[in-house]
Amino acid sequence: MIVKVKEPQAEEIARIRPGRVIFTYFHFAADQALTEAMVESGAVAIAYETVTDRGGKLPLLTPMSEVAGRMSAQEGAKYLERPMQGRGILLGGVPGVEPASVLVLGGGVVGTNAAKIAAGLGARVVIMDVDGDRMRYLSDVMPANVHTVHSDAHSIRKYTAEADLVIGAVLIPGARCPVLVPRSYLAEMKPGAVIVDVGVDQGGCCETTRPTTHSDPIYVVDGVLHYGVTNMPGAVGRTSTFALTNATLPYVLRLANLGYRRAAAADPGLALGINIQEGRVTHPGVARAFGLKLETPRLAGA
Amino acid sequence: MIVKVKEPQAEEIARIRPGRVIFTYFHFAADQALTEAMVESGAVAIAYETVTDRGGKLPLLTPMSEVAGRMSAQEGAKYLERPMQGRGILLGGVPGVEPASVLVLGGGVVGTNAAKIAAGLGARVVIMDVDGDRMRYLSDVMPANVHTVHSDAHSIRKYTAEADLVIGAVLIPGARCPVLVPRSYLAEMKPGAVIVDVGVDQGGCCETTRPTTHSDPIYVVDGVLHYGVTNMPGAVGRTSTFALTNATLPYVLRLANLGYRRAAAADPGLALGINIQEGRVTHPGVARAFGLKLETPRLAGA
Amino acid sequence: MIVKVKEPQAEEIARIRPGRVIFTYFHFAADQALTEAMVESGAVAIAYETVTDRGGKLPLLTPMSEVAGRMSAQEGAKYLERPMQGRGILLGGVPGVEPASVLVLGGGVVGTNAAKIAAGLGARVVIMDVDGDRMRYLSDVMPANVHTVHSDAHSIRKYTAEADLVIGAVLIPGARCPVLVPRSYLAEMKPGAVIVDVGVDQGGCCETTRPTTHSDPIYVVDGVLHYGVTNMPGAVGRTSTFALTNATLPYVLRLANLGYRRAAAADPGLALGINIQEGRVTHPGVARAFGLKLETPRLAGA
Amino acid sequence: MIVKVKEPQAEEIARIRPGRVIFTYFHFAADQALTEAMVESGAVAIAYETVTDRGGKLPLLTPMSEVAGRMSAQEGAKYLERPMQGRGILLGGVPGVEPASVLVLGGGVVGTNAAKIAAGLGARVVIMDVDGDRMRYLSDVMPANVHTVHSDAHSIRKYTAEADLVIGAVLIPGARCPVLVPRSYLAEMKPGAVIVDVGVDQGGCCETTRPTTHSDPIYVVDGVLHYGVTNMPGAVGRTSTFALTNATLPYVLRLANLGYRRAAAADPGLALGINIQEGRVTHPGVARAFGLKLETPRLAGA
Amino acid sequence: MIVKVKEPQAEEIARIRPGRVIFTYFHFAADQALTEAMVESGAVAIAYETVTDRGGKLPLLTPMSEVAGRMSAQEGAKYLERPMQGRGILLGGVPGVEPASVLVLGGGVVGTNAAKIAAGLGARVVIMDVDGDRMRYLSDVMPANVHTVHSDAHSIRKYTAEADLVIGAVLIPGARCPVLVPRSYLAEMKPGAVIVDVGVDQGGCCETTRPTTHSDPIYVVDGVLHYGVTNMPGAVGRTSTFALTNATLPYVLRLANLGYRRAAAADPGLALGINIQEGRVTHPGVARAFGLKLETPRLAGA
Amino acid sequence: MIVKVKEPQAEEIARIRPGRVIFTYFHFAADQALTEAMVESGAVAIAYETVTDRGGKLPLLTPMSEVAGRMSAQEGAKYLERPMQGRGILLGGVPGVEPASVLVLGGGVVGTNAAKIAAGLGARVVIMDVDGDRMRYLSDVMPANVHTVHSDAHSIRKYTAEADLVIGAVLIPGARCPVLVPRSYLAEMKPGAVIVDVGVDQGGCCETTRPTTHSDPIYVVDGVLHYGVTNMPGAVGRTSTFALTNATLPYVLRLANLGYRRAAAADPGLALGINIQEGRVTHPGVARAFGLKLETPRLAGA
Repeated sequence: MIVKVKEPQAEEIARIRPGRVIFTYFHFAADQALTEAMVESGAVAIAYETVTDRGGKLPLLTPMSEVAGRMSAQEGAKYLERPMQGRGILLGGVPGVEPASVLVLGGGVVGTNAAKIAAGLGARVVIMDVDGDRMRYLSDVMPANVHTVHSDAHSIRKYTAEADLVIGAVLIPGARCPVLVPRSYLAEMKPGAVIVDVGVDQGGCCETTRPTTHSDPIYVVDGVLHYGVTNMPGAVGRTSTFALTNATLPYVLRLANLGYRRAAAADPGLALGINIQEGRVTHPGVARAFGLKLETPRLAGA
Repeated sequence: MIVKVKEPQAEEIARIRPGRVIFTYFHFAADQALTEAMVESGAVAIAYETVTDRGGKLPLLTPMSEVAGRMSAQEGAKYLERPMQGRGILLGGVPGVEPASVLVLGGGVVGTNAAKIAAGLGARVVIMDVDGDRMRYLSDVMPANVHTVHSDAHSIRKYTAEADLVIGAVLIPGARCPVLVPRSYLAEMKPGAVIVDVGVDQGGCCETTRPTTHSDPIYVVDGVLHYGVTNMPGAVGRTSTFALTNATLPYVLRLANLGYRRAAAADPGLALGINIQEGRVTHPGVARAFGLKLETPRLAGA
Repeated sequence: MIVKVKEPQAEEIARIRPGRVIFTYFHFAADQALTEAMVESGAVAIAYETVTDRGGKLPLLTPMSEVAGRMSAQEGAKYLERPMQGRGILLGGVPGVEPASVLVLGGGVVGTNAAKIAAGLGARVVIMDVDGDRMRYLSDVMPANVHTVHSDAHSIRKYTAEADLVIGAVLIPGARCPVLVPRSYLAEMKPGAVIVDVGVDQGGCCETTRPTTHSDPIYVVDGVLHYGVTNMPGAVGRTSTFALTNATLPYVLRLANLGYRRAAAADPGLALGINIQEGRVTHPGVARAFGLKLETPRLAGA
Repeated sequence: MIVKVKEPQAEEIARIRPGRVIFTYFHFAADQALTEAMVESGAVAIAYETVTDRGGKLPLLTPMSEVAGRMSAQEGAKYLERPMQGRGILLGGVPGVEPASVLVLGGGVVGTNAAKIAAGLGARVVIMDVDGDRMRYLSDVMPANVHTVHSDAHSIRKYTAEADLVIGAVLIPGARCPVLVPRSYLAEMKPGAVIVDVGVDQGGCCETTRPTTHSDPIYVVDGVLHYGVTNMPGAVGRTSTFALTNATLPYVLRLANLGYRRAAAADPGLALGINIQEGRVTHPGVARAFGLKLETPRLAGA
Repeated sequence: MIVKVKEPQAEEIARIRPGRVIFTYFHFAADQALTEAMVESGAVAIAYETVTDRGGKLPLLTPMSEVAGRMSAQEGAKYLERPMQGRGILLGGVPGVEPASVLVLGGGVVGTNAAKIAAGLGARVVIMDVDGDRMRYLSDVMPANVHTVHSDAHSIRKYTAEADLVIGAVLIPGARCPVLVPRSYLAEMKPGAVIVDVGVDQGGCCETTRPTTHSDPIYVVDGVLHYGVTNMPGAVGRTSTFALTNATLPYVLRLANLGYRRAAAADPGLALGINIQEGRVTHPGVARAFGLKLETPRLAGA
Repeated sequence: MIVKVKEPQAEEIARIRPGRVIFTYFHFAADQALTEAMVESGAVAIAYETVTDRGGKLPLLTPMSEVAGRMSAQEGAKYLERPMQGRGILLGGVPGVEPASVLVLGGGVVGTNAAKIAAGLGARVVIMDVDGDRMRYLSDVMPANVHTVHSDAHSIRKYTAEADLVIGAVLIPGARCPVLVPRSYLAEMKPGAVIVDVGVDQGGCCETTRPTTHSDPIYVVDGVLHYGVTNMPGAVGRTSTFALTNATLPYVLRLANLGYRRAAAADPGLALGINIQEGRVTHPGVARAFGLKLETPRLAGA
């Protein structure tokens, strides 16, 4: 069994033997070449991003969402600086000078972590979601400078116009982010305001979001800075690696101890992680993406 | 010695004998009849409101400022209700609905207590002052939903227009409040917004402030509710009495044990409390108010 | 489809055409005339108060409970003032003077919000419930001046006698509130103490609770003030409307997009909202209240 | 120069040469033999306990007061256990069971630290003092489960009767503690309640306080446990030593670099630390205690 | 029906009549004589420790876990004192002196309560668990001086070596605690560090843990103090009794009102509490422990 | 009168007329050419950096210290990222992964603000100072994840070695920073750790600190990143300008209303701001720096 963080690179794939189990992030639907190579390899590809827990959540994506959420506020603070092309304001203000206004779109893992850090930096934070129960919980546990507001087009437009920093934190597993901030809103934003769109991998929730890299992280549209780095956790690799390993280790142990067929038979959520099994495509998302035939994974005792 | 809370009433004055010490609130400068009556009585009038501590503060006014400051936020919350003629909003909002914006003008005892309670009710609070060191302290100890903003005309106008509740907390010992909110600002305020002006006894810091009573506390000017009750602490008499007694008792004990001449000789701040001494006016504010001759108080050993 | 907040008024009912969907609060069981009128109208009455979410909660009642809970503490603070006939104390005390004691009966949505605001005002708060897990959660997220105490007759009596303010927050969906505070306890309470009974619509949890209005909100029994306003959220209509709309909007959209029969077929909790369907009574509570025949709602595909 | 923590022991004194500087705790007034021995030795005794800073505080006593204050709450928690003869309650309670009530007498360094720890343990804490400004500060910075109450005989009696733990924290530099809790109050206390009297070295603020040791720390009077260990910080020697050294080190450096005569000439507060100088008694407290002649210390340039 | 706290004593068993219901802690698996006596008695033994709620938790054990968890931190603070043989440090440090480091192994009920109190005492706390979602919740609600760290052998070893206090809080219902701290780690710990192992009844999570009593609570292994009292909540009997009664009372009422057969038929979790029924062993754990025949409990209507 | 932020540029100086008052930052001691030009100009140079308030503090430097202090933590967070050459860790960690350790050297304005923001980001923070009373205050008002430690060489070395981020915040008005972190300590630091030395203008408190710019902010020495930007507040110009104006405006008004000679006569702290007066050097620091003759400023009435 091979356990990795990133998808196998070309030279690595060449050396994979049939039947070998590869446990890592694959994101097949976005990479046809990788999909075909893994099908041909005869290996078993168990993808972190589709392993599911009992509550239907994606436990091997959550740690990366936590890292990216926390980073998003600190990136926003940095790019608001004038030499970075931002508005030239300090997120937390100082005594006598009001702090920045931060709008966090989405109250899930990414948004909660973003709001917590933005609040810790001293900003005035609004976090938006459509889930009333989530709002109630956030209202119980967030610092007093975070306010929850129900997400709808009217509110998003109003708070976007007031914000110094907008953090896009709307990630829907396996789907494109809905576009909540159309380009037309940018004209109403403050010049030099910053958008950090954490969901860039899934298209982002701003119409103007596009992918960038750590070496060239920002670009400006209509006077608004956009930060669209696709692999934010990569910048804090030590933290990310620990966080990911904490989550993957229990699976690795079970895969190693039981063999993957028995481990997956005992845990349907782990079975959902098997994307490709010895030449057969076994995950609906992958099959659908490339018009391949979907087959049922063969588990122990099945 | 007679210890009271309110100034002596007409029938009481008639019975005061010369040389008797009366220790209470007098507020002579606002009441010529009382001044003349006390001069004629030959009694010694030691006024709570001019007793001073070593730091130059007024320790017998502070407890009433604390009570009034805390009450002001809860009065504001009440009069924002629609049946009270207010905007019909809940100060703290609820999860998913943004809270009210509260502007507190003045970061002294009144303002600090007002901001603390408004924050406790869940509002978004801005507190303004011109004293940078006070701002720094407030920024250290206030809840995270209180932000400090330097007070100047531009900021006051901006935040007044955004506020659902404005609390006037600018009290300058022995002077009229400066007018920080001219009537012209009211037109920019939200209809049904509320102003609670704690400094009403000293004229208030809003041009449109005028005195009201607990039985008829509010009036409307240009669509904005005004709460101008002159004796706010009177509504919570049990709390106020305890608070005042805590502060006056040490003075009472010293006056009783040493006699007022020796007590005042030993404590120059207490001596400043002697407004009228056996027919002689001994406080500059009283003398100035009515064009009377100012004399030096006669203390023990002097 | 007609979306409202309050039940249809007589003149409105006259104009409702058969088959029209009315989505609002109805509270049929308390209003036989309304029930009969709606049956005759041939319309479809979907009642906010019986729509249920997956967890068995009532998502269209929750926002009103939040508003009422938060208001209850601020009403209590107001009516403790002496001119309002209360004890004349300030809920939060001041430095050197102890704060009021607040007892919140019930740790659900109403009670949690009441306790949070009472604590924010600086009071010493006890919140009672019988659900241990709820206590544990409250103990994790409440401010340090809120203490949880298991609810039983002995404790209720003891803490009622010590309290300056008692908030009744025991609402059981579709049932009368249990009487936790019999009249006999009032004799042991402090004169001028205040009871705010949020569950007054369902009879309240105090024997002496009876309904009042915003224009005449209080009455006194055995020296204790009672606040029994039946529609507390009405006083803060702006906040309440936003809060309610946040919760109803997703249902409205589905009703509009799918038609009510398909929307209800897809969401059993929404189907529970259909109280009357084109002349047929389809909710057990309504049928039972007036001895009417209960029929099954006809949904799409059923 | 010799720097120590405790006063010199008999065998050490014998070896002290004239003119040698000893910098340590001496507490001469309580130990005539030590006083006489040090006079005879011809050494210079600079006592930690009388060194004063610019604000008139005793900077070399403060660290020990902090340690003792923090310890006092945790000792109280321990001795409330039943096997220790206490009431058998847990200071912080648990969800559903009310916490203990703690009364802290005195809002200075000892009391503030005691209250902070008692609050951290989850208790309901009342802290009493007569200084209004100190109350205000405590009310700004203490956790929400600490309430300030003005200290007077009526309040002390009332809160003592309700308390599970009373912490005596009334230390007046160089004077006997006033007796705030007469023996008669004990009869009204709960059986098994605990008194920790930190001021035991100065007589304690409870009539029934008497000195005990770490090996036999408690005794019972009228059903109430008393903890009167005289050298509380000694139990946490590592922490105490660091705390003390942080405070003494700057003095030690100046004494070593300048010589004690020049160091004391430059810092009148350090000069106040010189209790005995080469056979002459130079501190009024020591002279008064044993009827010795008081002389002025001889400093450099004087 | 007999309701108790502790298991029946020999003389009590003799008087139990057949068919009588005994509702208390039994812990049969650890006491063969008790098991046999109860089988012979013909009584019905319903054991607190195996009653289960809907979420699969043990609601009659939880209150004791809360008490023990909270106590564990305060015991640790006490035994760190030098006269108790500890390191001689104050858990919370003082200003200028760093606080103690506390490691809590396990983030369940015991660990959460332990961490909360240790943090309240001012320590620097690390709490470890393997459940990511629990970590996230703790990170939302714990004070800022508590950090969550994923539990694995490497981390445990590292943090054990740095800790002044280790609290074992790993309790797995019905199973021996896993050994997380082997004896070899002790050599790397600081001399005088303290281990409080709350899971001692189930073997503890330290290899060197062994049971002790309130009268002789500690022993030293390899320089490290061990506190292994088996019945920690017994020391705070008043608190524990209230906590337990809060949890048992609803069951007692149902047992009394319905009879145990109907009560257990209506609540499968209560049925799991029936360990022995009129001479028949009905709980698998008891049967397995002593090789007895397991029978199905006879309930009403079954 | 001319009011500026930065010192006059060459072309500006040429146009300054004799007697004109220039009120801005000058920092003469570091710029002989500027000094000579201003002497020659015959103008009056009042320098922000030497204006003093009644407490001896520098009120026109404080706002910049606040901005720089808050920025320092967010810069540190940014440069810990791997693409920035840092260790690749997230300052606040995530649930299950320990946060970074931050050491703040100095507990004044800069350090307090740095510690507050680092704590808000979720780090484990140690703040060091030698002033015990400052430590006590910080311990009262800082979040629970900030611990105070007395500053001495031993502690600095220990905590530097453990730190991921060291913030130098030791600014002594008018003096070079003491070197607290010699180069030898760097070898013991973690590779990729970051030092942000706010005192770089005064030499910094690390031996290896040297000035950098916003366009090229960092350099690496012995594996440790150094951030030495000299004008940190410049990056957040909007915030800094408001903060500075809040502080300067009252002086500007007085200078304008009274004329500088009368304003300075009335406020000795403002008089200390007069560095050069119509060709005469009137500030000792400037005179000393360049061996010029020091003259007394001529004020009104003097």
